[in-house]
Amino acid sequence: MQLILLSGGSGKRLWPLSNDSYSKQFLRLLPAPDGTKESMLQRVVRQIRESGLEADVTIATGENQVGTIRNQLGDKVSIVTEPERRDTFPAIALACLYLEKEKLCDKDETVVVMPSDPYADENYFHTIGKMVSAVEADVADLVLMGIEPTCASTKYGYVVLQDSGENVMKVDCFTEKPDSEKAKELIDGGALWNGGVFAFRLGYLSGIVRNYMQAGSFQEARERYGELPKISFDYEVAEKAASVAVVPFKGVWKDLGTWDALSEVLGCKSIGRVLTSENCSNTHVVNTLDTPCVCVGTTNLIVAISPDGILVADKQSSEHVKPLVNRINDRPMYEERRWGTYKVIDRYAAQDERTRSLTRHLCIKAGKGTSYQMHFRRDEVWTFVDGTGKLALDGEVRDVKKGDAVFIRKGQKHAVKAVTDLHFVEVQIGDNLTEEDIERFDFSW
Amino acid sequence: MQLILLSGGSGKRLWPLSNDSYSKQFLRLLPAPDGTKESMLQRVVRQIRESGLEADVTIATGENQVGTIRNQLGDKVSIVTEPERRDTFPAIALACLYLEKEKLCDKDETVVVMPSDPYADENYFHTIGKMVSAVEADVADLVLMGIEPTCASTKYGYVVLQDSGENVMKVDCFTEKPDSEKAKELIDGGALWNGGVFAFRLGYLSGIVRNYMQAGSFQEARERYGELPKISFDYEVAEKAASVAVVPFKGVWKDLGTWDALSEVLGCKSIGRVLTSENCSNTHVVNTLDTPCVCVGTTNLIVAISPDGILVADKQSSEHVKPLVNRINDRPMYEERRWGTYKVIDRYAAQDERTRSLTRHLCIKAGKGTSYQMHFRRDEVWTFVDGTGKLALDGEVRDVKKGDAVFIRKGQKHAVKAVTDLHFVEVQIGDNLTEEDIERFDFSW
Repeated sequence: MQLILLSGGSGKRLWPLSNDSYSKQFLRLLPAPDGTKESMLQRVVRQIRESGLEADVTIATGENQVGTIRNQLGDKVSIVTEPERRDTFPAIALACLYLEKEKLCDKDETVVVMPSDPYADENYFHTIGKMVSAVEADVADLVLMGIEPTCASTKYGYVVLQDSGENVMKVDCFTEKPDSEKAKELIDGGALWNGGVFAFRLGYLSGIVRNYMQAGSFQEARERYGELPKISFDYEVAEKAASVAVVPFKGVWKDLGTWDALSEVLGCKSIGRVLTSENCSNTHVVNTLDTPCVCVGTTNLIVAISPDGILVADKQSSEHVKPLVNRINDRPMYEERRWGTYKVIDRYAAQDERTRSLTRHLCIKAGKGTSYQMHFRRDEVWTFVDGTGKLALDGEVRDVKKGDAVFIRKGQKHAVKAVTDLHFVEVQIGDNLTEEDIERFDFSW
Repeated sequence: MQLILLSGGSGKRLWPLSNDSYSKQFLRLLPAPDGTKESMLQRVVRQIRESGLEADVTIATGENQVGTIRNQLGDKVSIVTEPERRDTFPAIALACLYLEKEKLCDKDETVVVMPSDPYADENYFHTIGKMVSAVEADVADLVLMGIEPTCASTKYGYVVLQDSGENVMKVDCFTEKPDSEKAKELIDGGALWNGGVFAFRLGYLSGIVRNYMQAGSFQEARERYGELPKISFDYEVAEKAASVAVVPFKGVWKDLGTWDALSEVLGCKSIGRVLTSENCSNTHVVNTLDTPCVCVGTTNLIVAISPDGILVADKQSSEHVKPLVNRINDRPMYEERRWGTYKVIDRYAAQDERTRSLTRHLCIKAGKGTSYQMHFRRDEVWTFVDGTGKLALDGEVRDVKKGDAVFIRKGQKHAVKAVTDLHFVEVQIGDNLTEEDIERFDFSW
């Protein structure tokens, strides 16, 4: 069985912990069974493995998430990246083309598509198992997961059933985001929420994709990605499908899309360096900085602190965060990359704005390294504060360790590789300090 | 007339903006007449100058505040530093010995002692003028300022009067911090709060000091400072004085000792990089970081953010800040020094705690410079990001400018002097990174 996890989203709703390159599914805030913290993505992949589903996992995502995903999941998953951002139908189509053309899966193999960030219990994965059995038993072309509605929400799509039952039921039709009166009526009639989980045979989707594109190879499909229509899988596939069934899921299922919802599953009142007075009530604090946070006498409050910003929000108002945060146009101040992590620790701009500096603390993980690169508009000074590694500078390789410093002038090609976890402080000086000022070159150590 | 301003306090109550070396009177948060911000100390000195009092100002303080005071007030005030922290009587005695032995003031000259942080209107300074006139008219040996009580506070000392009047009145006795019932009784009898402002002839205090110490010079007095008793001026002088008068003050007078009180005089809802939603009410935010702060739907809240920490406090609870903050034993993360300012931007400790780094952004003001110094337990890498200056390294002097980097190994003597405002990022690497690891040497540029 092939399982495709959709990992997208720019994630402003859980700002400041999520930012443009660090979506909410990557936040390591959930309590893991071993006492550490895990992200929504790590939790889902752990649950898949523990569920007994014999699934090969492929993650459909954007190029900018590859580093974080590799960091969090290692090399045991496949990753398919969209060349450009379109919608869920083309993203799923491309992942299926990868399974067909690159992984050479059989057209009869069952594929399950699901989001990467549901907060659910083990029943969710048992339900996926039932969906796979339904596909294998040819109950329908497309089998989806129905969630028992808990309120007349106007945010979800509703699945209207032909019959009622406990396991697999035939679907009559879909109603996307109805008003609350209509929603109530649908629920009274036994409709379920569409949980965004779909199961089908690989060949079924390949047939639909062939209407838009007939590619000889995965590489060709990727190059012709723009030919696939910008439309969601729900509209392009689910609503048009002639034969659809649904398996109802009963259990814990939450959309951790707001701080209010997330705070309920943190398992503790605070994470990080936080002191709260005894008269604080219903206050949750997440602090990823080394700087201490003190809360005194607060009520119904979310406080979230990261290198990107500081949020103080009334719990009932936390959905209003997004419009304010959209007015902030800072670069990401924290990123997880293929090679490790960095944090911006200082920014300076002279009054004339032409002299700027940006200082980062980088950690390269043992065995990993940066690309061989060059900048046009900035000098860099690196001071190694811990670990050992190798530095390539204009073709010459030398060992570096704690206490060393190196001056990299604009135009100099450079790369660094960690032998043990390597920490360094980088001071960038120039007139235009962006991640885009970079040219990459081939290099072999 | 000589005016002694007492500048002390470790200032945890306005944490995180005040820290051990940056007391509340230095916070540049009050609206100044020219549209900029000024500190409580700057405000008081400006008000003294605007009041028409012809006063020479001497500031009695600790060694660690000299840099900040010079930064904020320039060279137009005298500064007397206590060799060790004792209490207000020895501090005032030492300042008076300075006036007598070093400044050679006449024993008949009037001295006024006052705190450096009252938030008062101009009438406060007119009242000081009346106190000076009362001393000059020999109404009493000691004249103090009486504040019209606004509540039966148990925090203040009360001055019980012999008679009633509008201007100068004879004092019968003092009652320190009575319980609230007694306070009410005192107020009904016409008692005033003791405002902590005292006027007397220099010779009067010299006579009292001579009971403890007869020093030939100010330098000798400073060396023998420990011989002066650890006692407040109120107990040692005011309560024992045979002839005391009081001048009542009527006007605005506030103790800005809590965030709640301070927020009332800020003149705006937020300072720094702050976004608040429209449904925030009675929320004040002070943010001295470059990191944005977003507040959504909050009520009756103080948010204060600095390199030292993040405070989120209900306004009515802001007096409970201190016990929590006392549990934080961080070094100061921001300081104003004689030569400029620094901010700690990153700290790192390896798991074995033996490898550490600390990164600071320093700004040396044009014309100023650091001492010529050496560290035993750390290397430093300096990257200059703006400005021009001179660097002395083991006796050799060279020019430095934006884009330069220098490696200072442990044991190397070094100093820097700014020609134009000089910004640099300093990475310290070692096993014990404290401000105490320093040896200073003489050096002339």
